[in-house]
Amino acid sequence: MNRVTAVVTPLPRWKSIPFTSVEIKDAFWRPRLEVLKNVTVRTCLDQCEATGRITNFAKAGGLMEGEHEGMYYNDSDLYKVIEGAAYALMLERDPSLEAELDRIIALIHAAQEPDGYLTTYYTLRTEELKWSDMEKHEMYNGGHLIEAAVAYYESTGKRVLLDVACRMVDHYDSLFGPGKRHWVEGHEEIELALVKLYRVTQEERYWKLALWLLEERGHGHGVGVIWDKPDWGPAYCQDDVPVRDIEKVTGHAVRAMYLYTAMADVVHASGDPAYVDALHRVWSHTVERNLYLTGGIGPSVHNEGFTHDYDLPNESAYCETCAAIAMAFWNNRMNLLFGDAKYADLVERELYNGALSGISLSGDTFFYVNPLASKGGHHRVEWFHTSCCPTNLVRFLPSIGQYTYASTNDGIAVNQYMSGDAVISYGEGQQVRLQQTTNYPWQGSIAITVEPEREEEFVIRLRLPDWCRGYSLRIGGEKVLALPVRGYLEVNRKWTAGEVIELVLDMPVELVRARYEVEANRGRVALQRGPIVYCMEEVDNSNLAFDESAITDRDSIYIDHEPELLGGITVLTVSGREAGATPLRFIPYYAWDNRDPGYMQVWIREQETTHLYRY
Amino acid sequence: MNRVTAVVTPLPRWKSIPFTSVEIKDAFWRPRLEVLKNVTVRTCLDQCEATGRITNFAKAGGLMEGEHEGMYYNDSDLYKVIEGAAYALMLERDPSLEAELDRIIALIHAAQEPDGYLTTYYTLRTEELKWSDMEKHEMYNGGHLIEAAVAYYESTGKRVLLDVACRMVDHYDSLFGPGKRHWVEGHEEIELALVKLYRVTQEERYWKLALWLLEERGHGHGVGVIWDKPDWGPAYCQDDVPVRDIEKVTGHAVRAMYLYTAMADVVHASGDPAYVDALHRVWSHTVERNLYLTGGIGPSVHNEGFTHDYDLPNESAYCETCAAIAMAFWNNRMNLLFGDAKYADLVERELYNGALSGISLSGDTFFYVNPLASKGGHHRVEWFHTSCCPTNLVRFLPSIGQYTYASTNDGIAVNQYMSGDAVISYGEGQQVRLQQTTNYPWQGSIAITVEPEREEEFVIRLRLPDWCRGYSLRIGGEKVLALPVRGYLEVNRKWTAGEVIELVLDMPVELVRARYEVEANRGRVALQRGPIVYCMEEVDNSNLAFDESAITDRDSIYIDHEPELLGGITVLTVSGREAGATPLRFIPYYAWDNRDPGYMQVWIREQETTHLYRY
Repeated sequence: MNRVTAVVTPLPRWKSIPFTSVEIKDAFWRPRLEVLKNVTVRTCLDQCEATGRITNFAKAGGLMEGEHEGMYYNDSDLYKVIEGAAYALMLERDPSLEAELDRIIALIHAAQEPDGYLTTYYTLRTEELKWSDMEKHEMYNGGHLIEAAVAYYESTGKRVLLDVACRMVDHYDSLFGPGKRHWVEGHEEIELALVKLYRVTQEERYWKLALWLLEERGHGHGVGVIWDKPDWGPAYCQDDVPVRDIEKVTGHAVRAMYLYTAMADVVHASGDPAYVDALHRVWSHTVERNLYLTGGIGPSVHNEGFTHDYDLPNESAYCETCAAIAMAFWNNRMNLLFGDAKYADLVERELYNGALSGISLSGDTFFYVNPLASKGGHHRVEWFHTSCCPTNLVRFLPSIGQYTYASTNDGIAVNQYMSGDAVISYGEGQQVRLQQTTNYPWQGSIAITVEPEREEEFVIRLRLPDWCRGYSLRIGGEKVLALPVRGYLEVNRKWTAGEVIELVLDMPVELVRARYEVEANRGRVALQRGPIVYCMEEVDNSNLAFDESAITDRDSIYIDHEPELLGGITVLTVSGREAGATPLRFIPYYAWDNRDPGYMQVWIREQETTHLYRY
Repeated sequence: MNRVTAVVTPLPRWKSIPFTSVEIKDAFWRPRLEVLKNVTVRTCLDQCEATGRITNFAKAGGLMEGEHEGMYYNDSDLYKVIEGAAYALMLERDPSLEAELDRIIALIHAAQEPDGYLTTYYTLRTEELKWSDMEKHEMYNGGHLIEAAVAYYESTGKRVLLDVACRMVDHYDSLFGPGKRHWVEGHEEIELALVKLYRVTQEERYWKLALWLLEERGHGHGVGVIWDKPDWGPAYCQDDVPVRDIEKVTGHAVRAMYLYTAMADVVHASGDPAYVDALHRVWSHTVERNLYLTGGIGPSVHNEGFTHDYDLPNESAYCETCAAIAMAFWNNRMNLLFGDAKYADLVERELYNGALSGISLSGDTFFYVNPLASKGGHHRVEWFHTSCCPTNLVRFLPSIGQYTYASTNDGIAVNQYMSGDAVISYGEGQQVRLQQTTNYPWQGSIAITVEPEREEEFVIRLRLPDWCRGYSLRIGGEKVLALPVRGYLEVNRKWTAGEVIELVLDMPVELVRARYEVEANRGRVALQRGPIVYCMEEVDNSNLAFDESAITDRDSIYIDHEPELLGGITVLTVSGREAGATPLRFIPYYAWDNRDPGYMQVWIREQETTHLYRY
């Protein structure tokens, strides 16, 4: 791949909005967030309790007897549940949940060693092996502690966990850094967390430690079991090249995404053009050669990650839920950094497909692996030995409000479409209230009422989703010809209170085809409508066997919203135009495996027609 | 090509409805029909007068002195104008126009020779050469006389012209037929006209003469200048094979279409399976290998017709207006014969594209040739030396009401969507009133109020247009899952008065691609929205030279209905998602060359993207 410098000068560097500034009233998301708070947070806390993930802290803190249970990264799961619970609390206070969290936080506090060290696995098992194997997730655990601490602080104002986090980072700082010990954390996470900690504390040391940790990679400093495995090696954890030289996405998918997320966070502060170029290169390589239609990434179970370009098998697709979530994290950072809607398009793709598929509609069972085809043997379960995915969902989904808008110097960007009210600050602190009303993702009409504090000129950017070709726009009832700029319809005008933006996005069913290079999908098509990727499930199509069906580009599609089915979904019934062939019924991919078990397919064989023109 | 027998048994044999049973109130069509009556009929009558087409009859009838003016087929133009004027009279009576027509009909009556012969060219020039050259359009003229006579009779109840026609056909019958002289009419038309005459008179001789004329072809009976031209020969006028052996569309496009129209008419009566097979074969060959996206047919100026498969050049496309109209005639017959919506799809394609482009918005200038690209030198003119196209438009457009519905044994078929009221008979003579309301072709929502005489069970078939993938259907507010049967959504139910059908057709902008075999369009795309094929014109895109523009499948399209522009059109503004590239403005193909002259293009170069998935 040639290196092409594609720096946007100057970097737009948009600002994230606190998700608490967005009240989600959306018919699609609101019920999900309620299930998440009422079922998923509870499920995950109970599982952490039942599997010793909580008592490990009590033991490490000397508050009870016993050995460490489970894996060396299990601390992180509890931290992620705390983070998710903190977000849920921001949506709606809950004294009993808060009391429970305070009790757990006290255990964490107790488990921290006097010098700030905090990983129960080593404290309870083999103190002498601390910091000996860079793959043992010590700083990965630490990163998740930081994210939990920041979330709980922002949610409740309570500093206990934040102070634990700061003491832990100070401990890191004392051991590692220029002139001190090298460290290449085997599973990235700490880097992005340190930038978060910097933002809440304004302590510059923290983001500089993140930068140093990034710069450590690719220079042969890595030591640990992974580095010695010949078929994994340094590339598995992105230690094969210095980060500024990254050309291609490699290795473990979640690790890679967390790394790029941190790089984008750091560039936001540093502006380093070498990072900018590396991010552009690796983003293109990921998205243009290694992305499933669902937003899933990482085809291989072997390394939970990437293999070779265009290797996107369907049935054996790994597509870890965490990787889809991490892809959303990264693309959100890219959106803020570069001010381009194409990154928010990917956040959307994960929100409605690759990440959302990870959780059942009931909120209590989970996919770790999200294949695009199954012969019937793949099902959500209640918990995993390595349970990163449930705990990532529990913190990702309640925070989606932060992805809906971004704040720019000259106004605001509307990144996601969901009904709700928001108060967004932009520029020098001006505020604007936005009321969004839509039946998205089922219908493409969006109305946004704009209420600035006073009549004022500023820019509102409306994302034109990547799946949307035709659109129209009215403001205050008048047609406005706005053409996309970096994927946004930019409207720069003096806004008066109560002005209504009406955006209409054509939302036809698209037959999607993959590039020819994707061998798995040659001669196949997938259905997408709006942001929703569809699949067919055996329960709806039991008269056909797995992969027995085929569609043509001239088939007709009956579109029907079924409010009572699977939480309310738009069902597509595909049929030829002659009579006789069996119609195929498609449901959203995210909603599969919520009824009777059976086969599932996203990519369907395409049957050629004799038509002279192809639509 | 292998012969595949594809007979639908039994043939549905739907019935055409009289177009007078449909009152068109449509915002798209009604103003056009008014222009047609007020401007086009007048223009064509004046041109017929000015070019001697009317006085030729007065001269042949001995009512004035002088020589024959113009071509041997000029009689047909006057007949076609009379036919069109008769249709216009059926829409709205007009005593002054009717008086003018009566005066002209009297001249025609006078021009008929005592034995029934009627072609002013021979009567006035070279009596002795009558029936010597089968290419001299004697029966072609006669066919158009019949169509005019039937129309005028149905419109006014006056028999004068119908009697002239019957005497003329009796004359044919006395000369030609089994055991009499052979005749292969060089330009088909008489055959379909004879079936029309049979239908209005119920005289069986007439359709049997049509059948005999069809059967004459392909046996070496043809004599005349065309047959002797080596690069035209018998195939030019479809005399190369017996009609029941036709495999491929050949020769002059209008002639071919009129032949197949007559064959479909005759099969409607005869049911001959050999004809059915031949029609299926030649239809597939025409539509799957030799059809322009606009519905235009016949790429070559040389033979005004077909060349070799997939030869569909854009700039040099001949695409005679008459051929597009004739294609609609044929496909209307095929629809009635086989009860399949795919034929009505083609009627629609001609209505909104290839035929409609033949006339200016002002109704007084015309295209003979309808290319899909022009560097700026192609423009509509007021009249032609051979003026078949204006006079075909003048009779085609006011008759479109007859294409909106068809009558079946078990109910009705809705073939075209346009606002208006209709009273349709079906079955044993039951009647149903239908009120259709729609903003078609600009919007895909159609409401039809059904008013049967009494509550009764019957089938309503709704055409699902070929361009439409996604749709939904409600009847009486209730969702109805209807899947297409031969292209129709069939609703069989007990209908009560006032029941409302709500059909919603997704109408996205489609990027259309041609099969790879079409060399002219390799690497090119065209835009179509609903039934409307789009083009770009220089007047809207003067910052770009001819063929300088390119689009990608990820471009965005701003959709804007401009009621004041070109009679009210939906304009498409195509733009990349990054800023900077010049947006391209597209208008409906039918509306081109109604403003400043300049280049025009339907097929635009497609620029590849790096996207992994193609929509």
